[in-house]
Amino acid sequence: MRVSGKSYRTIWVANDGRSVDIIDQTRLPHRFATVSLRTLQDVAHAIKTMQVRGAPLIGAAAAYGICLAMASDASDETLDCAYGILLATRPTAINLRWALDEMRAHLRNQPREARVAAAWKRAGDIANEDVTLNASIGEHGLTILRDIAASKKGERINVLTHCNAGWLATVDWGTALAPIYKAHDAGLAIHVWVDETRPRNQGMNLTAWELGQHGVPHTVIADNVGGHLMQHDMVDIAIVGTDRTTARGDVCNKIGTYLKALAARDNDVPFYVALPSPTIDWTLNDGIKEIPIEERGGEELSHMSGRLPDGSVVEINIAPDGSAMANYAFDVTPSHLVTGLITERGVCAASAQGLRGLFPERAPKGLGT
Amino acid sequence: MRVSGKSYRTIWVANDGRSVDIIDQTRLPHRFATVSLRTLQDVAHAIKTMQVRGAPLIGAAAAYGICLAMASDASDETLDCAYGILLATRPTAINLRWALDEMRAHLRNQPREARVAAAWKRAGDIANEDVTLNASIGEHGLTILRDIAASKKGERINVLTHCNAGWLATVDWGTALAPIYKAHDAGLAIHVWVDETRPRNQGMNLTAWELGQHGVPHTVIADNVGGHLMQHDMVDIAIVGTDRTTARGDVCNKIGTYLKALAARDNDVPFYVALPSPTIDWTLNDGIKEIPIEERGGEELSHMSGRLPDGSVVEINIAPDGSAMANYAFDVTPSHLVTGLITERGVCAASAQGLRGLFPERAPKGLGT
Repeated sequence: MRVSGKSYRTIWVANDGRSVDIIDQTRLPHRFATVSLRTLQDVAHAIKTMQVRGAPLIGAAAAYGICLAMASDASDETLDCAYGILLATRPTAINLRWALDEMRAHLRNQPREARVAAAWKRAGDIANEDVTLNASIGEHGLTILRDIAASKKGERINVLTHCNAGWLATVDWGTALAPIYKAHDAGLAIHVWVDETRPRNQGMNLTAWELGQHGVPHTVIADNVGGHLMQHDMVDIAIVGTDRTTARGDVCNKIGTYLKALAARDNDVPFYVALPSPTIDWTLNDGIKEIPIEERGGEELSHMSGRLPDGSVVEINIAPDGSAMANYAFDVTPSHLVTGLITERGVCAASAQGLRGLFPERAPKGLGT
Repeated sequence: MRVSGKSYRTIWVANDGRSVDIIDQTRLPHRFATVSLRTLQDVAHAIKTMQVRGAPLIGAAAAYGICLAMASDASDETLDCAYGILLATRPTAINLRWALDEMRAHLRNQPREARVAAAWKRAGDIANEDVTLNASIGEHGLTILRDIAASKKGERINVLTHCNAGWLATVDWGTALAPIYKAHDAGLAIHVWVDETRPRNQGMNLTAWELGQHGVPHTVIADNVGGHLMQHDMVDIAIVGTDRTTARGDVCNKIGTYLKALAARDNDVPFYVALPSPTIDWTLNDGIKEIPIEERGGEELSHMSGRLPDGSVVEINIAPDGSAMANYAFDVTPSHLVTGLITERGVCAASAQGLRGLFPERAPKGLGT
C-alpha cells in the first residue's frame, strides 16, 4: 500500500539479493524508517522487538530468517537450529510455525548446494501468497460491506477495528483492513473507528497511520469507547484480525478483542474476523483452555513514546513509582461471539463445520463432531 | 487517607478561613501538589480542568464555590449566577446539581448578612457527610468482601476496578475503594487489578497512586485485559463507582465500565457499583437514552504526560499527524448487568424496587411500576 504516495510492502528482498528490508514498525507513527536484516539473529531480534509484527508478517519474516541462516551455513543442524530460534521469538502467532514448517519441509530433502536458492524462492512465494490471500479476503469482505452500504443508502459505513490487522501486519493489503481498502478504493463511503489498542498502541500508531497514508477516513478512540458507540448505533460492523484460530473457530487476537465481541453481541452488531488460512491451528479446539497467552514486559504499559513540541521523539514513564504492571498480550474470543470468518476462500461460520466446509482437505478427520 | 504517611482529605478550608485548598489531581502521580482556590472562577476552573474530579468531590467543590461567590457578593443575583457557572462545568455528575441545589435552597431564605457564614457551614457539612456516607459504603462492601474471603480460605481476593472511585474521587475514603481500604485495614488479603482507564489514565495516575500510598497490593493493567482475567478466574469481584445512577439502577460511569460489566456477566463474576445516594438521579430511568454523555477534547487521547529519565515532567504527542480523535468520557451500564448497588444504607439490587427499598422517602411515587 501507499506511504507518502509511494507503494510499499512491509518486507522485501534488498537490491543486493542477500539481505531483507523491513519497515521498522516500532518507530511509527513518529518516524518512517526501514531496516536491513542481514542475519538470522537480525530477524529473530526484529520479531522479538516487534519491528515486524502481525501474524502473517511474522510468518513471512521467519521464512526469510531461514534464508539468511542457510546463506551462512546450509547444513541440517543450522536449519534445525534456525527453526528453533525463530519459533521461540513469539508464542502466539501460529503462522510462525506454519511458515517455518513450510521452509523446513521444503529444504530438508534438497542437496545443500541447492538450499540457499530454494530457500529464497520459497520465502518469496510465502510472501507473495500472503498478498494473494489477503487480496482475496479483501474481496470477500467487500461483499459484506457492499450489503451494509446498500442498506444504509449512501450514509457512511462505520467499521470498528482493534489493534492493527492492516497491511503493516501482513506483507500487503492486511486482513481486517483489506475489505476496508477495497471498499474505499471502490468508492464506498467508509469510516473506521480505530481502537487505540493499549498497551502498545498498534491502533493509534499503525492502523491510524496506514489508513491516513491511504486516505481512508478514520477516528481514533480509546479502547474503552467501542461499547458506547455500539449502544448508540454508531458501529455497523466490527472486523478484526487473529493471531491464531482454532479448528472450531475460537479466535485468539490482541488483548481486548473479546470485550468488543461481547459488546457487539449485546448490541446486535456483526462481528467478523478476517484471516488467511495459515492462521488456523487445526490441532486445537478450545482456545481459552489451549492457547498459551504471551505475557510481555510491564514497561510496555508504563512507558510511552511520542513527540515533544520540537518534534524530537522521547520515551516517558507514565506510571506511579512502585506500582506493579501486568501485560497479557492476547485474549481468546469464543466462536459463539463471532458472526463469521472472512477467509481467502470466502466467508464461513465460526465453527468446525464452517471451517471444514471451506477447507475440507485440511480439516482433521472427525472435526466438528 | 494517607500520603507519605500523612492524613489528607482532597479538599479543605485553608487556615485563613477564606479560601479552599485542594490536591491538584492533574499533576499526579508525578507530583503531589496542592492548590489554593480563592474565587468562584478558581473553583469552576478546577472542576473543568479536572484538578478536582470524581462525582462526590465535584459536588463538595461546587458547594465551596458557592461559599467563595457569596464571600464576594451575597446577593440573589450572584447566588443564581454562581449556580449556573458551576453547573455548567461538567455535564454528567449528578452530585454537582445536588450539591448546588442544597446550597441554593439553604441560602435563599437567609438574610444577606448571614449567607457567608451559612454557606461555609453547609459546604463543610456536605464535605463531612460525604466522608460519613463513604465510610458506611466501605462497611457494607466489607461484608461482601468478607464473604468472598471466607470462600477462598485465605487465598488473596482479587478485585477489579475501573477509573478512580477512590478517596481522590471523594472528600475521603472513596466509593468503590472504600470497601477495599476497610478490608485491607481489617487484615484481609486483598489485591486490586487497576484498569489504566484511558484516555485520562485515572486508574494509572490516581487509583494506583493512592493504593500505593496506603500500602494496598495492586497491579495496573491495560483496559483491554479485564475480560481475559475473568475468563481465567483471576477476578473474584468487580467494584466500580458511578457518576450518575438512574432510579431503575442504570449506571453511568467512566467510559469502558460497560465492557467490564459485560465480561463479568459472561464469566459469572459479581459486578458491584458503590455509590453515595446523592449520585442517584431519581428523575431518570433509561440511562442509555436519557443521560447526556460528555465529549471531551481529543488531545486527552493524543497527548500524554510523564517523566523523562531525569525526572522532569513533559507532555508528548503520541498520535499520527492528521488522525481525528473522539473522546466520549462516560458510558452507561444497564442495571441488568449489575449484581448489586453498595450504598450508605446497605446493598440492594440494581432495580427500582431495590433502590426504593433503601430510600423509600426519596423515590418518586410510582417508581418501579
